Amino acid sequence: MEACGASEAGSTPAMRPMIGEAKGMRDFPPAEQIGREQLIGSLKQVFESFGFRPLDTPALERFEVLSAKYAGGDDILNETFSLKDRGERVLGLRYDLTVPLARFIAQNPQLKFPFKRYQISKVWRDGPMGLGRCREFWQCDIDAVGSSSMKADAEILAIASNVFQQLGLDVEIRVSNRKLLNAILDFLNITDKNAAILIIDKLEKIDESRFIKEFQEKGFSRTTAEGILEFFRNLPQGNQEKLDYLAKILKSQEGFEELKELLKIIDAYNVKVAIKPELARGLSYYTSTIFEVFSTKGKITSSVAGGGRYDSMIGNFMGSKIEVPAVGISFGLDRIYDALVDLKKLIPKETNTKVFVIPIGTDTESIGISQKLRAAGIPTETDISGKGLSKNLNYANSLGIPFVIFAGKQELESGKLKLRDMASGKEELKTIADIIKSLK
Amino acid sequence: MEACGASEAGSTPAMRPMIGEAKGMRDFPPAEQIGREQLIGSLKQVFESFGFRPLDTPALERFEVLSAKYAGGDDILNETFSLKDRGERVLGLRYDLTVPLARFIAQNPQLKFPFKRYQISKVWRDGPMGLGRCREFWQCDIDAVGSSSMKADAEILAIASNVFQQLGLDVEIRVSNRKLLNAILDFLNITDKNAAILIIDKLEKIDESRFIKEFQEKGFSRTTAEGILEFFRNLPQGNQEKLDYLAKILKSQEGFEELKELLKIIDAYNVKVAIKPELARGLSYYTSTIFEVFSTKGKITSSVAGGGRYDSMIGNFMGSKIEVPAVGISFGLDRIYDALVDLKKLIPKETNTKVFVIPIGTDTESIGISQKLRAAGIPTETDISGKGLSKNLNYANSLGIPFVIFAGKQELESGKLKLRDMASGKEELKTIADIIKSLK
Repeated sequence: MEACGASEAGSTPAMRPMIGEAKGMRDFPPAEQIGREQLIGSLKQVFESFGFRPLDTPALERFEVLSAKYAGGDDILNETFSLKDRGERVLGLRYDLTVPLARFIAQNPQLKFPFKRYQISKVWRDGPMGLGRCREFWQCDIDAVGSSSMKADAEILAIASNVFQQLGLDVEIRVSNRKLLNAILDFLNITDKNAAILIIDKLEKIDESRFIKEFQEKGFSRTTAEGILEFFRNLPQGNQEKLDYLAKILKSQEGFEELKELLKIIDAYNVKVAIKPELARGLSYYTSTIFEVFSTKGKITSSVAGGGRYDSMIGNFMGSKIEVPAVGISFGLDRIYDALVDLKKLIPKETNTKVFVIPIGTDTESIGISQKLRAAGIPTETDISGKGLSKNLNYANSLGIPFVIFAGKQELESGKLKLRDMASGKEELKTIADIIKSLK
Repeated sequence: MEACGASEAGSTPAMRPMIGEAKGMRDFPPAEQIGREQLIGSLKQVFESFGFRPLDTPALERFEVLSAKYAGGDDILNETFSLKDRGERVLGLRYDLTVPLARFIAQNPQLKFPFKRYQISKVWRDGPMGLGRCREFWQCDIDAVGSSSMKADAEILAIASNVFQQLGLDVEIRVSNRKLLNAILDFLNITDKNAAILIIDKLEKIDESRFIKEFQEKGFSRTTAEGILEFFRNLPQGNQEKLDYLAKILKSQEGFEELKELLKIIDAYNVKVAIKPELARGLSYYTSTIFEVFSTKGKITSSVAGGGRYDSMIGNFMGSKIEVPAVGISFGLDRIYDALVDLKKLIPKETNTKVFVIPIGTDTESIGISQKLRAAGIPTETDISGKGLSKNLNYANSLGIPFVIFAGKQELESGKLKLRDMASGKEELKTIADIIKSLK
């Protein structure tokens, strides 16, 4: 992956200094965009196989929508690109796809629930530039709005499992429940739950001494911090063992019951998960189920998707007292793309063109041949620049076009054309009908 | 098509006044987005069949790129949304896809020419709100960069023809050449060519008296205006007759020769066009071939695509003396969508789901059935809300899902399930294997 803002303006002598993409932004040239669209196509197919439907919302939202109390919060607002339109209205570029969804739901009371939508679009955050962090990036979200049943949570997990299976990416799906975590914190006598949750979420990312130090920095005693660490480190290993243990010690059983119900349903989908009570995820709007998907092979072992249930946010957004339950997941398109390329499950290619027809004094005929191949569903290029044979061959080669047809006059008269397999160099004389057969 | 900004904030009692989309922006709910993605899919398929490749560029560009001398011009700049990033750099939301392409070409001198790219993305213009005019809209552009041959222009026209043929939309492709128009203006002794061209472009849109008045307002004499009108009104009808006549009277033959060459090549593609020397198109950056596509049936008879050759813009943009020839076309996605819906060539639908499995005390089994259908490539929904039979039926009906399976316990035990065709109401008992066969 090209880092953001890596290409510096004016790096080529022919360029004016002003020429360059905006800081933190990046282009996706064809070789990357083709693979990305392939990935998006696979995701959409899975989403639609479960009845999720596409929604598109504008890039610009009213700033007051983006800054609503139950939206992204202050940290995100500080990173929101804002501007004024010609009527001096303050607008902002969306920083996620959840707030626009909530706004859309609020505006369309006629919608039938469950409203199952997906949206694969760009979002913008004017954050500090880190390694590979861009100010414009793709998000890929699915959400089921209007169902409070664990069946909805199970369906989202089944989709996640199906997506990564289809892509050939080995993952571990980690599941928890915010209510369960709260009950655990009650058991541990922790009152400042929000502060504790943010640190507990880092359990697998930082070492023990730092874990304890972060608690101390937030005013917890060393003993308390060590107690928390010990509790999570000493949890039984298996899902069933964990559940049995937690059932015994916890006062509030609500989160526990939800999790048990969820596990029962995902069993019908044959989806495997790992229960991780320490999984918290930063976002404060989760109310119940929480999940995160990690890739488990190859160089990149980071989080590739995450989400959960947020039953209060949309209703709060609407200003109504009615709860509008919702559960969703966000797929990290860029990370998934990088992981697939890294594991060679996705091979970037410059073009989808299958064959290049080189005219050799046969411009008109070469157009005819190309049109026949296209009509047969074979993406075909021919010369559009008036170049000679070797330059056309060079072009086809540089784009990795797998086949070339030499449309010589003699061959055309004989009814057969020379087809070269660019990888092997093998050449054969074939009729157009036979060429179509072998290229399809 | 929903007009932009039609929905007023706070129109529903349950809503807070702040909830609403930004002025001039609109959502695409599933029923519209599904059709739009279908349309985009058809367009992409044609583009790729000719070897065009996808490029993606950021929504935000440096303002100095958007305001470069050879970019969109002052009128467009006045409508450009601009903002500052955290580093106080002035950015703007792109108003078209051509300037980002020029910037990309300038920044990537390693690109092989011809560089044939397509981009289907949103652009933004903070213009006055007219009927159906949105401040965010889709553009769909293809451009071939680096070829000065009329073969490239011909390929673009062949793609346009192919696109509308595939969509089943009857169109007329009108073609002209800027050099030819200049030669005609020389013949008519017009010196202020730019002013004249902008009015001549309206020949078919406004009546004669207004046509003459607009010329007079720009300082032309009535006699001159009438002479121009007469010239274009009295041109011979057929393409060949027009060309023969123009060949006789024009001094500069360059545009004429290009047009003749273009016609010869598109003949090999079997593409029909109408030569319209009065076709000018407003944009001043066209240097040679110009074309515009009009739909000719149904309520909507407006322009659905347009473009031409612009050999100076990219080179100027790079600040180099080298010409970077380019030719391209922009498809009006919204107008094409509206025309297709109007002609019932595209029927909007709420969902791509084919069948809804209603559990009747068979939650687990219904998940299993749904998964089998999905594995067979049939988009399937089942209850995720814990609703009863009639509510699930209601949901399936409201989304227009064509089939419903009643998964009763008895039926499951017998190995057959009841499949209802929602349109006819017909019900059949079938095995899952048979259901898959009939739904595929």
